[in-house]
Amino acid sequence: MERIPILRIGNMLLVSIQVDLQDHTALMLQDDLSNRIVETGAKGVLIDISALEIVDSFIGRMISTTAAVSRVLDAETVVVGMQPAVAITLVELGLTLSGVRTALDVDRGIRLLSRGIDDRARGGDVIRDDYLAE
Amino acid sequence: MERIPILRIGNMLLVSIQVDLQDHTALMLQDDLSNRIVETGAKGVLIDISALEIVDSFIGRMISTTAAVSRVLDAETVVVGMQPAVAITLVELGLTLSGVRTALDVDRGIRLLSRGIDDRARGGDVIRDDYLAE
Repeated sequence: MERIPILRIGNMLLVSIQVDLQDHTALMLQDDLSNRIVETGAKGVLIDISALEIVDSFIGRMISTTAAVSRVLDAETVVVGMQPAVAITLVELGLTLSGVRTALDVDRGIRLLSRGIDDRARGGDVIRDDYLAE
Repeated sequence: MERIPILRIGNMLLVSIQVDLQDHTALMLQDDLSNRIVETGAKGVLIDISALEIVDSFIGRMISTTAAVSRVLDAETVVVGMQPAVAITLVELGLTLSGVRTALDVDRGIRLLSRGIDDRARGGDVIRDDYLAE
């Protein structure tokens, strides 16, 4: 049974999705990820999808759910490395990845999350709406 | 054809190996990685093998070669996330991963590399022997 590794980088967790997600792999990932967020007290989650050439509605929904679960556990999610073709498909499919921010690569994702974490530490969650409106 | 993503984190590159490496995937990875090191001027390479339950002589050799190539391009390699069973197998097989340092997880690997990069920036490569003797 395949398991997607969750890598800790400072107060963030990085998940690099490289294989086609099956139902049970996706469920296991959500499970593992929420456990790791609680264990580590991580404040951010980076989901790297640079290896994916296709994102269908199943993966889209999985990402949205993961982001929603993480948010409840006080961790923001950023999807990084989306290929241009994937972005086009997502829009064509009407999948908006609501509530999920994106960044071009891991490095930018980390910076985006760090800024968010600092701001939240300073001012609480009131600021979040500004991000979403960005 | 599967391609293993190479993720940039600051002045380091992270490769998370999650699938059984075939010959051509391994060669492509070495090729991609050397190109990325040159492009980005990365000073460190993290190879995450936490998803691997078996490391055979092929992967062992691939890791050693990658580390050797990276070193020539002025980037140090750290293997992170090795499972205990894998460590036992490696020793039993007589694979020593010569010239490759290891760390328990990505976070520790980043810290190990940062220290090395700082020291090299300060004093040049003379210091490297100390690390290997650690």
